[in-house]
This record gives sequence, C-alpha cells and structure tokens, in this order.
Amino acid sequence: MPLAALPTPCAVVDIDRLDHNLARMATHLQALGVALRPHVKTHKCVPIARRQRALGAQGLTVSTLKEAEQFFDAGFEDILYAVCISPDKLPRARALQQRGCRLTVLVDSVEAAVAVAAGGAPLPTLVEIDVDGHRSGVAPDAPELLAIGRALHEGGAGLRGVLTHAGSSYELHTPVALQALAEQERARCVQAADRLRAAGLPCPVVSVGSTPTALSARQLDGVTEVRAGVYALFDLVMAGVGVCTPDDVALSVLATVIGHQRDKGWAVVDAGWMALSRDRGNASQAHDRGYGLVCDIDGRRLPGLQVIGANQEHGLIAAVAEADGGDLPGAVDAAPAGPAVGAGSAPGGAASGSTDRVAADIVYRLPLGTRVRILPNHACATAAQHAAYHLVQGTRVQDTWPRFGGW
Amino acid sequence: MPLAALPTPCAVVDIDRLDHNLARMATHLQALGVALRPHVKTHKCVPIARRQRALGAQGLTVSTLKEAEQFFDAGFEDILYAVCISPDKLPRARALQQRGCRLTVLVDSVEAAVAVAAGGAPLPTLVEIDVDGHRSGVAPDAPELLAIGRALHEGGAGLRGVLTHAGSSYELHTPVALQALAEQERARCVQAADRLRAAGLPCPVVSVGSTPTALSARQLDGVTEVRAGVYALFDLVMAGVGVCTPDDVALSVLATVIGHQRDKGWAVVDAGWMALSRDRGNASQAHDRGYGLVCDIDGRRLPGLQVIGANQEHGLIAAVAEADGGDLPGAVDAAPAGPAVGAGSAPGGAASGSTDRVAADIVYRLPLGTRVRILPNHACATAAQHAAYHLVQGTRVQDTWPRFGGW
Repeated sequence: MPLAALPTPCAVVDIDRLDHNLARMATHLQALGVALRPHVKTHKCVPIARRQRALGAQGLTVSTLKEAEQFFDAGFEDILYAVCISPDKLPRARALQQRGCRLTVLVDSVEAAVAVAAGGAPLPTLVEIDVDGHRSGVAPDAPELLAIGRALHEGGAGLRGVLTHAGSSYELHTPVALQALAEQERARCVQAADRLRAAGLPCPVVSVGSTPTALSARQLDGVTEVRAGVYALFDLVMAGVGVCTPDDVALSVLATVIGHQRDKGWAVVDAGWMALSRDRGNASQAHDRGYGLVCDIDGRRLPGLQVIGANQEHGLIAAVAEADGGDLPGAVDAAPAGPAVGAGSAPGGAASGSTDRVAADIVYRLPLGTRVRILPNHACATAAQHAAYHLVQGTRVQDTWPRFGGW
Repeated sequence: MPLAALPTPCAVVDIDRLDHNLARMATHLQALGVALRPHVKTHKCVPIARRQRALGAQGLTVSTLKEAEQFFDAGFEDILYAVCISPDKLPRARALQQRGCRLTVLVDSVEAAVAVAAGGAPLPTLVEIDVDGHRSGVAPDAPELLAIGRALHEGGAGLRGVLTHAGSSYELHTPVALQALAEQERARCVQAADRLRAAGLPCPVVSVGSTPTALSARQLDGVTEVRAGVYALFDLVMAGVGVCTPDDVALSVLATVIGHQRDKGWAVVDAGWMALSRDRGNASQAHDRGYGLVCDIDGRRLPGLQVIGANQEHGLIAAVAEADGGDLPGAVDAAPAGPAVGAGSAPGGAASGSTDRVAADIVYRLPLGTRVRILPNHACATAAQHAAYHLVQGTRVQDTWPRFGGW
C-alpha cells in the first residue's frame, strides 16, 4: 500500500532508520562489553522488542506493570520494572512472578524495601541510585543505601543490585558534557554497588542508562547492563542533545493539509497536539523546532518548515528562520526568499512579518490535500498518542504494528 | 468500590461536579435562547454525551471522523464535524451520511468547497469564519466568503451556514475581555451570515462557541447554536481564564506516592506526563500550576501542593508558594511554614531553598502509598491519556465509563 493511502493523522515508522538505530546501540554496547536491556516504554510494541532481542538484547526494561504483563504475554520473561514500586502494586507484581516471569522491581526507601521483603517468595529487587539529582533514588554515599540493602536482603527479598538513570543527560548538548555525565553515572552507580558488597550484601547487577549517556560512554567498567529506550526511534530532543540527527528520526506523523491562512503564511494540517503530543522538549534547547519539523511524504525535510502551533486537531505549519540552517542540509539553499513568518510556538501565537511572497510560497509548497510527515519533539510522547505504527520503506507501507497504552 | 482500591494512575470524574457543570451551561444557553451542540472532543465518552442530551443538547460537535462514527453508532444522528475537511476524507464522511447520519462538514476555501460539491448527494456544509485570527476560517468581510458560499450552493453541496470558534478566549482572564470577545464572536459570525443571505445564499445555521465565550455571552442575537466542550469537565486553564474555580474541575488523576526526595521536599507519584499529559497551558497564565494541583483522595485540595515536574511515569509533588493564596480557600492558613521549595515546572527542574521543616512536611503529609488526586491543566489532553473514567461520588466508585481515542 502506498503511504499516501493511509488515513491521517497516523504514526509512521521508517524501517530502515529503525534498524539502523537498533544496530547502532547494539554495536556500541557490545564493543563496551555490557548487556543491553532496552526500555520498551518508548515504543510499547512487541515486534520492535523482538527486533531488539534478535540483535542481542538481554531482557527488557518497562515503566509500568501493564508493559510487564504485555511483554511477558508476548514471550519476554526477563523484565525489569524500573519505577519504584509502591506497596499496593506488589500483589500484581507477584502475580506476574508466579506466572513464571523473571520480574525485577525497584525501591529507593527502607519502607518500600520492607514491604517488598514482607511477601512470600523472594522478589528480585534493585535499589535506585540518584547520580544526578534528577528524580528518584538514594545518593551513592547515603547511609540509607545500606539500610535499604539490609532490609531487602535480611527480610528475604532478592536483593540483586543497583540501578540508576542519568535523566539530566537530556539537558546537555555537547559530547564533552555527555561523556562526563556518562562517566559520573557509571562511577556513582559502581560506588553504590561497592558499598553494598563491602557491607556483605549481594550486588550482581549494576544497571545504568539513558540514551544520551549510553551512546556517549567510553568505558563502562563495573556496569553489567545498560538501559536505553528512545534510541530506537529517536526524536528532535535527541537531535538537540546531539546524539542523532533529524534524519535518524524513525518516527513521524503523517498529516494532510486541510487549509491555509494565506496572509499569515500558514498551512493548516490535521495533526494537532492530539497526534503530535503536547511535548515541547525542544523549547528549552538551543534550537526550538516548535511542535516538529516538516518533511514531504518521502521523508525528505522541507527546509524551514515547522509546526509553529497546535490545537487539538489542528497543526499550524509556517516557514521559520532557522539560525542553524547549516545543521539542516539544504536549508540554506532552499529557504524561502521572503522574511520568515512568526516563530511563535504557542497555540494561536500570532505570526508577523508575512509578505505576499511568503504567503504564496506556503500555498504553493503545501497545497490543499498535501501529505506531510512531521518529525516529533519526543518519540515517547508522540508514539503514545497512537494505537499502531505504520512501517514504511520509502513510501510503501510494509506492515502495521500495534502498540498499547494505559496502565 | 472505594476509590482507594483502583490501580493507579487512572482518570477519575466526580459525578456531582460533572452534573453541575453540564446543568450550568445548559441553563445559561437556554436563558439566552440558543441551542447547545456540545463538543465531545473533550470527553469522547458516550454516557457523558447522553447526559448532555438529557439536558437538552441538540446534536453533537466532533473533531474527528472517528468521533462522528463512534457517536453515530451510539445513537447520535445529528453530528457536526467542526474541523475543515480535506478532500481525501470525503468518502468516509459520505459513508456516514449514507448510513443515515445527519453529518455536517466544514470548509474555509473555494477549493475544498468545490471538492465537497463534486460528490453525489448534497452534504450539509458550513463555512468557517475567522473572528479572532486564532486559527482557521475566512474573515467575515473577505470576498472569498461569497465565492465559497456560491461554490457550495451552486455546486450542489448543502450550504447550511457559518461557524466560528473564538479560540483566543483561552488567552483572556477578565470578565470584561471575555464578554467583549463573546460579542465579537457573535457579531462577526452574524455579519458573515448576513453577507451570505444578502447574496441570495441560504444560511440557516449560525454556530459559534468556545467554553469561555459561551459562558460570558450576554446576548446571542442571530446565533442559532453554541458549541462548547471543556465545560463538562473543566480544568485549571479554565480556572485561570476565570470561568470556573479549581473546585469545579470534575476530572482528576488518581495517583500513588512511590517515594520521596526528603532534602528537596519532593514526593514522587506514579502519575507522570503519560497520565497527566504534557499540557502546560497554565504556564502562560497568571498563576502557573505546574502539571496540576494536588488534592487528597476525597478531592479536597492540599494547599500549596503542585506537581512541579513530570517524567513519563513519575510526577514530582512539592509545596509551592502561591501568590494567589487568597484564591485557594485554606491556602493561607495551611501553607507550610518553611520557605517554599522550587517552583520549577520543567522536568527535572531543580528545587532550591528547601529546609528540614519542608522536607519533613512533605513526607508527613504524603507518606509512601498515599493516594492523591491531581487536577489537570487541560481536560482534553489529560482525558486523552486514559481509556476510561472512573465515576465517583465522594470516594465511592459508582461506575466506569469507557472513552476512546484515535482517528
């Protein structure tokens, strides 16, 4: 089926880009001698996880118990639930364990450790370590770390090791800073593991990861596995961080032009924030891409065109002056000759400085009914707005893979 | 079932607030002598639409053809698809019409009008009018308006009238400004209708609406119907606009405390942006509520507590100094005595200025396992992250109503 035959809006995944991204991470981590445990929260799609397994992935990482259940039902037995578990979720986790799932859970407090240890059979458990002040976890040098370890081990839970996620890597954008954070993530997590071992506690697992640090790490001594998720699809935030280019982004939203505001230089498409998500992760990066960069149906970027605003089912596309035109091959040559229209990214943000030249340009470039593909800010958020991925090679739809949502 | 027994995160709707909100709009528009055609894009839930119909609603408004199909299948026959239709969607629209749906579509260009008129049986069509430069539509005094009307009427499409949506009302926050925009919306849409009629074209329908202008209108002479959607559930953006209070918000996300960062004064909950949505509509309003205001399981607001940051499955709750404490009953008396912790709303935004007093406070107020309810920024976006609403009265779950997504 040709891509143009799909109803819009819908989520499209470029198979070749997907496979390239999967191979890149697998190869990188193999060279560093650590296992890859992909985080499936980005794609929530069994066929993609199977591709990751075929490339050597060892187990999966999930962000919800529903993901654990869905992937276990699909034949994945080694699953790490990498969000601290609250006591009320333990019966559901144990039910999975009793069905044969090798489920590992996570805690970052003595209270939660006691709750995990209070159950029946040992439930394999990691302790979350905070290496960058980003979110959850205990500091590697916190007295509480040993108390948690003891509560798990002596209480009968299966203390398995330590885990961290250097989520602050998303805020970086230079290789030097990324390499430094990757080393910080490694070193602090290993430090926590060493403390547990020095206290006589078992710690076979040292699990680290985020896509930016995983791809930036030069050595991972002491680490046993790396978790990464968004690398499978990539997105404009990752391009802003610098670990991919826009042309590596495998996920796009296919949309149709439904109208124009000629005097403002806008083309209106049927992909609003419901299809793109409200994620504006690029807004805090050096180059703000609005709600996404615009490509033609073949996946070639249309230089200068961005989704500058979004309502629920409306996206507003306009030409925007891109300070980093050089980062976007072709942008300099093909940029519209008129002054750029408003770069306002807020919904309904007013555009200004339009000219007849620009207005004519947008109508000429994107006539009514034109199909475009929009590269998203954040693959995890955009993918979550869709129930399936349409897999394309070129502009041929080769397959449709379901994904799931919910908890 | 008690609310505390539900797995988290999940979407909760307070029945009494819902019914109050539905009755308020119905009563207001009945007093103004115009029909209400509720927009179901907010809730996408058949039982809520039935409640709206029971209160006198005449037909429904939808934002996608899937909504039209779903509500038609549920027994709603008079449906307005209020997003400009692209030519490729016409076969799907006509299929609905042929099944007996009284479907009305929308255009804002001659090109689209010609495409609608080119089909078989007349397809009832409205022309979108732009009354506030917000998004789509033709200006009420544009020459193109008559050309579109003629293309529809003479081409054999069923020209039925004009439609507008004063979406810029979301950017206002005073009754005076809202009343002025409501009158502008009315007057300009009626002006467009008068021009069509003066040109000998039929225009029985004059459809206006947005929740803020609908509730602010003092008179709607010449208008035949009002569309509004978010009023059913309301949200913090609408509270910021001033057309409801936080205590009118019927939608909340039930979440569980899964950990703490004591030194930062954070409680971590299992509702991140996947459950809350990435919508930060409050960020541009006078009072930024982060990713939402926090209530206890009974729905009573916990003064000063906001979701200050969100990752995919993590929400960060902290006490925030609220400049408008007076708008939040109880906030002044019950605010934490220590300095407020960081009001940063960006994911991973660092908090500062924490004290032992504040840290102790958050752990004391929200111990591990505590259930909280989070009032969302934007009901349309938050509801879209969930497959069902749990209907509660007090803290008893009375029913579960499915909702749908997708296109």
